[in-house]
Amino acid sequence: MLYLTRKENFSAAHRLFREDWSDEENERVFGKCSNPGGHGHNYVLYVTVKGEMNPETGFVVNLKTLSSIIRDNITGKIDHMNLNTQVEFMNGRMASTENLALAVWEELDPHIRMLGVELHCIKIAETENNYIEYYGKSQT
Amino acid sequence: MLYLTRKENFSAAHRLFREDWSDEENERVFGKCSNPGGHGHNYVLYVTVKGEMNPETGFVVNLKTLSSIIRDNITGKIDHMNLNTQVEFMNGRMASTENLALAVWEELDPHIRMLGVELHCIKIAETENNYIEYYGKSQT
Amino acid sequence: MLYLTRKENFSAAHRLFREDWSDEENERVFGKCSNPGGHGHNYVLYVTVKGEMNPETGFVVNLKTLSSIIRDNITGKIDHMNLNTQVEFMNGRMASTENLALAVWEELDPHIRMLGVELHCIKIAETENNYIEYYGKSQT
Amino acid sequence: MLYLTRKENFSAAHRLFREDWSDEENERVFGKCSNPGGHGHNYVLYVTVKGEMNPETGFVVNLKTLSSIIRDNITGKIDHMNLNTQVEFMNGRMASTENLALAVWEELDPHIRMLGVELHCIKIAETENNYIEYYGKSQT
Amino acid sequence: MLYLTRKENFSAAHRLFREDWSDEENERVFGKCSNPGGHGHNYVLYVTVKGEMNPETGFVVNLKTLSSIIRDNITGKIDHMNLNTQVEFMNGRMASTENLALAVWEELDPHIRMLGVELHCIKIAETENNYIEYYGKSQT
Amino acid sequence: MLYLTRKENFSAAHRLFREDWSDEENERVFGKCSNPGGHGHNYVLYVTVKGEMNPETGFVVNLKTLSSIIRDNITGKIDHMNLNTQVEFMNGRMASTENLALAVWEELDPHIRMLGVELHCIKIAETENNYIEYYGKSQT
Repeated sequence: MLYLTRKENFSAAHRLFREDWSDEENERVFGKCSNPGGHGHNYVLYVTVKGEMNPETGFVVNLKTLSSIIRDNITGKIDHMNLNTQVEFMNGRMASTENLALAVWEELDPHIRMLGVELHCIKIAETENNYIEYYGKSQT
Repeated sequence: MLYLTRKENFSAAHRLFREDWSDEENERVFGKCSNPGGHGHNYVLYVTVKGEMNPETGFVVNLKTLSSIIRDNITGKIDHMNLNTQVEFMNGRMASTENLALAVWEELDPHIRMLGVELHCIKIAETENNYIEYYGKSQT
Repeated sequence: MLYLTRKENFSAAHRLFREDWSDEENERVFGKCSNPGGHGHNYVLYVTVKGEMNPETGFVVNLKTLSSIIRDNITGKIDHMNLNTQVEFMNGRMASTENLALAVWEELDPHIRMLGVELHCIKIAETENNYIEYYGKSQT
Repeated sequence: MLYLTRKENFSAAHRLFREDWSDEENERVFGKCSNPGGHGHNYVLYVTVKGEMNPETGFVVNLKTLSSIIRDNITGKIDHMNLNTQVEFMNGRMASTENLALAVWEELDPHIRMLGVELHCIKIAETENNYIEYYGKSQT
Repeated sequence: MLYLTRKENFSAAHRLFREDWSDEENERVFGKCSNPGGHGHNYVLYVTVKGEMNPETGFVVNLKTLSSIIRDNITGKIDHMNLNTQVEFMNGRMASTENLALAVWEELDPHIRMLGVELHCIKIAETENNYIEYYGKSQT
Repeated sequence: MLYLTRKENFSAAHRLFREDWSDEENERVFGKCSNPGGHGHNYVLYVTVKGEMNPETGFVVNLKTLSSIIRDNITGKIDHMNLNTQVEFMNGRMASTENLALAVWEELDPHIRMLGVELHCIKIAETENNYIEYYGKSQT
């Protein structure tokens, strides 16, 4: 069993706030992340898949294929977008890195399975100082 | 003569577009950077000053002082903000990294002079793949 | 279950040696790390916590709170200090990165629990070429 | 139980192709990686070992010893070499990062055991955008 | 006057040796870089151009255009190639980073001029520990 | 004319303070850098030389030779040392990065000249957030 990780980048705007909270409450909990004008990040996404090596190719999975899946389903829909208002798979979710990791897992999982390997981990770094890792429901 | 560089980070949203252009024209010139929802980056700012070493302290300039000046005048006003709508010193300018570098120079220059050293370069990286450097008017 | 990691930096001096060993023995085992004048590093600390996402905030834990806990209990006491002589929670321990990871775990664990999440991993990099990871006693 | 990781670098040439396949088939599967002239990378190797801390030294294992083992058995034989034709332990294997990780594990495992610790993970990054991790057979 | 830098990556094989030298002489001068099987690197190319900001766009030059020029003329011809045998603009030159920087300058310069800006610097890093910078003939 | 840069690392302890100042004055000017127990850093040294390319080798200067000169004269004397008390060429100087850059220039300059190239710049980064560059006396 081998683990293969592909790193992809995207830049996006977001804002953390709840409409059902007062400005003060949003400010208290989310601080500068609730600034009404929004802000943004150069996000870094790491997709790790797990599988046996194909002895014919020496690959767990073809990186070109994996990269295409990530671009078609995630970065192509999210790069240079606003996570609060323009990304369908984030509708109805707080635009936190935690929710983004959960949503990316859900979007990618069926496509990764079709490659004959398992999705193992979605890691998203919002800045170089913090990141989220999600290993799927089975791991809970 | 020695050059001292201080690196500071900030995250901000921006959008590249001109109101006096059609959507097609904005899209043609600015591409995904003109997306109406905006997007954002983890910007990295490098401020380089130039001066003689003070023999008493071994410093060109005290890093704590330099860092405070950058935070008070730049990053404190720009971090987690929208460059198009919320940053006074960017009013009336396209929110490009080029304009940001020019504006940061103008904001910092008088404060740096008061330290007895010269501002030498403002470098701003928008992503790890592109950055702007500005050396002031005298260098042209 | 999600994993959130916060990275913090600190710079410290240390020396590896045992008073009950001869200089030759210290030199043989610890090499240049036993140099009597000491030396130092820009350490990088990664604190990983594990928990469910709070659906109201979209957070596993508030990063500001986590960061404050790390600064109050670790980096504020250790940054620009001498690990051999000036850090109370390293008293009586060899100033190795291994011991530092164990000590940081012990210091942080009770504070992290009070946030309603579990401490999952303490990772400390001494240089870009080596790092230690500790997952707590339960993992043994 | 603690995990210690040592990072080492090497630069090597390789080419992905099968002699029993047509040029078209090689091109279809391996793309530019099957270019007949070969190409190369600055590989980064991370060796993680797992063990108890020796209370006398504060070490899981002496980094100098671990580093020597990696250099004697891996990087000294592979740095500035051609993975397809000049590395004995890669004979008969596709020169993929997956196979390299398996081979490095096999080469290092007996030497690591002699240090009284376990080899935990071999991680090899081919570029900054992709890497392979292998945790040994027992983990399957 | 502003300086804009674009970073692009490519992976290539090369070998340093002279056919008119004995193996011993090649080994003495080029060391492991003259290994007959070749080796390779993840090269990093930084292209810096110099110009006035276009007040209409806020750009020195459009990054998409600059990036296309670099890909069409350099990285598309050199990525995953062998610098000794497969890159036309390196014909007849030692495959050193120095010569690569000179050749990249010559290839890019006419295209950069057509954008209305000047090519200022070609920087190529062979590994993270060494890089070459070339500022053109005028700078000598 | 080409510029070649070699990067080398070293770890050292230092303390910023003046014996002729009171503790309060040291604290006021140097802050936590004057902590009596000392602290330390993973310093990064960049040595840039300037010269014509040797057409026979394709080199400005042989990297192995340059690297040996840096190790023999600088990093071998300074790595894992205390800059205040154990480095001869820092005697009588404040252990600031500024002074270190000046001293490294003086130590390396005569050796670099013997290679038939000029020393162009000494850059030393104390942390990833600040660095000093020195271009020699002639540049003033």
